[in-house]
Amino acid sequence: MDPVAFRHPVGVRYLEVDQQGVVFNMWYLAYCDDAMTAFLAHGGLPYRAMLDAGYDAQVVHTEIDWHGPLAFGADATVTVEPEQIGRTSFTLAFEVWSADRRVASVRTVYVSVRTDGSGKCEIPSLLRAALAPPAS
Amino acid sequence: MDPVAFRHPVGVRYLEVDQQGVVFNMWYLAYCDDAMTAFLAHGGLPYRAMLDAGYDAQVVHTEIDWHGPLAFGADATVTVEPEQIGRTSFTLAFEVWSADRRVASVRTVYVSVRTDGSGKCEIPSLLRAALAPPAS
Amino acid sequence: MDPVAFRHPVGVRYLEVDQQGVVFNMWYLAYCDDAMTAFLAHGGLPYRAMLDAGYDAQVVHTEIDWHGPLAFGADATVTVEPEQIGRTSFTLAFEVWSADRRVASVRTVYVSVRTDGSGKCEIPSLLRAALAPPAS
Amino acid sequence: MDPVAFRHPVGVRYLEVDQQGVVFNMWYLAYCDDAMTAFLAHGGLPYRAMLDAGYDAQVVHTEIDWHGPLAFGADATVTVEPEQIGRTSFTLAFEVWSADRRVASVRTVYVSVRTDGSGKCEIPSLLRAALAPPAS
Repeated sequence: MDPVAFRHPVGVRYLEVDQQGVVFNMWYLAYCDDAMTAFLAHGGLPYRAMLDAGYDAQVVHTEIDWHGPLAFGADATVTVEPEQIGRTSFTLAFEVWSADRRVASVRTVYVSVRTDGSGKCEIPSLLRAALAPPAS
Repeated sequence: MDPVAFRHPVGVRYLEVDQQGVVFNMWYLAYCDDAMTAFLAHGGLPYRAMLDAGYDAQVVHTEIDWHGPLAFGADATVTVEPEQIGRTSFTLAFEVWSADRRVASVRTVYVSVRTDGSGKCEIPSLLRAALAPPAS
Repeated sequence: MDPVAFRHPVGVRYLEVDQQGVVFNMWYLAYCDDAMTAFLAHGGLPYRAMLDAGYDAQVVHTEIDWHGPLAFGADATVTVEPEQIGRTSFTLAFEVWSADRRVASVRTVYVSVRTDGSGKCEIPSLLRAALAPPAS
Repeated sequence: MDPVAFRHPVGVRYLEVDQQGVVFNMWYLAYCDDAMTAFLAHGGLPYRAMLDAGYDAQVVHTEIDWHGPLAFGADATVTVEPEQIGRTSFTLAFEVWSADRRVASVRTVYVSVRTDGSGKCEIPSLLRAALAPPAS
């Protein structure tokens, strides 16, 4: 696990485990969404504050590689690191860990949008600042 | 299964089945919500039309009895029947069936509200009409 | 909030909030399931240990009353209290709180079953002990 | 929409729509999972039959591009096409359509595994046959 990456604990819910006994694939996107929100809050931008300021982040691409399974009762951690920050979009790299085993790698591309429906916009300074938080 | 009740087919998703091999309890509320929407549409009121008219239905109480399990791949059917229609609230009775086996019984109480945030209101005539649809 | 009840923190996920801006009803059952697992673990019985001992708890009845909404970003707490402990079944009373506002009350009846498929059984002593934990 | 691709209808559930008014990202993986199951069944292999024969398909990679939003009440269709069929893995290409608007493109890589826990295996002939179904 990257020693400097932001870390977000995940509680695997019983309902997320399918009859194969492992977390069903879609819930990893729920974990990453939670971790993204926590990452921004840690960087000084609670999601609510971003919305109140008239901005939102919209997912346009995601890719997931699974390296192993995650079972009920496992302690899981999601790390978050900004991979690229552009003009109107940014990419976050997530890793899901169970103890010292890497379970999944996720890359998600977000586009900065206005909440008034006018669409894509330059990443506002409050979001840009939150994406480059001080080391934890 | 009540021969005159409205029926709504349900596709059990793989992800809804937990490691006990049966549908996890909360998904029954998803099935009933789907069935309620279909029931109103069958009664002439697509949900979107109710919202556009400035009304919504808010769940204030629900109770579920499980009589047996529901497995992945099962064909399930939800029946819907109005149980009571009051001035500002109404109660729907749902049953979830798998072939000719009754899996669960659900009763849900809804309150009619305005979407403008002014809260509880008398059941509007468009909703009242949809709750008493012609026999299917 | 009952000062002696067991308390379990809940993180409301963005995806659980519907277009009305409030947590969709079914997720309350997810919160209570999480809280029940935490309650048993607090009482000395991790869920995994109960399964490994050949026992499980099956939900046969639940009822929910909503007193108000729960929004994204709200800090929520679920309290858990045993309401009745019988020979083969037990009832837990849950309350969902947002700060000092009671959002929902839930009562759920569980039946003790064996994991070997032989069905209902007397509540085993390990579960009975966990249901009456020392005051927290 | 590819005129020869297998098509699976999707009913967007109210609960899947978030407070932005659009389907939350993770549910697209639920839709594709449903469509994959239907695709195999259409090819002659109900999922249950594959499991009973001792085989399963495990997701190891997925990637999603969103081209636009999907709202509650939208009629959606998922198309499924085999993109590559290897020795132990295969790739399915999905597209999610709302009427004639392409909403999302998904590529998922599955590995053939045995259900006895012995792991990765050659794609069994029953699965290989189902992946190349007769034109619908």
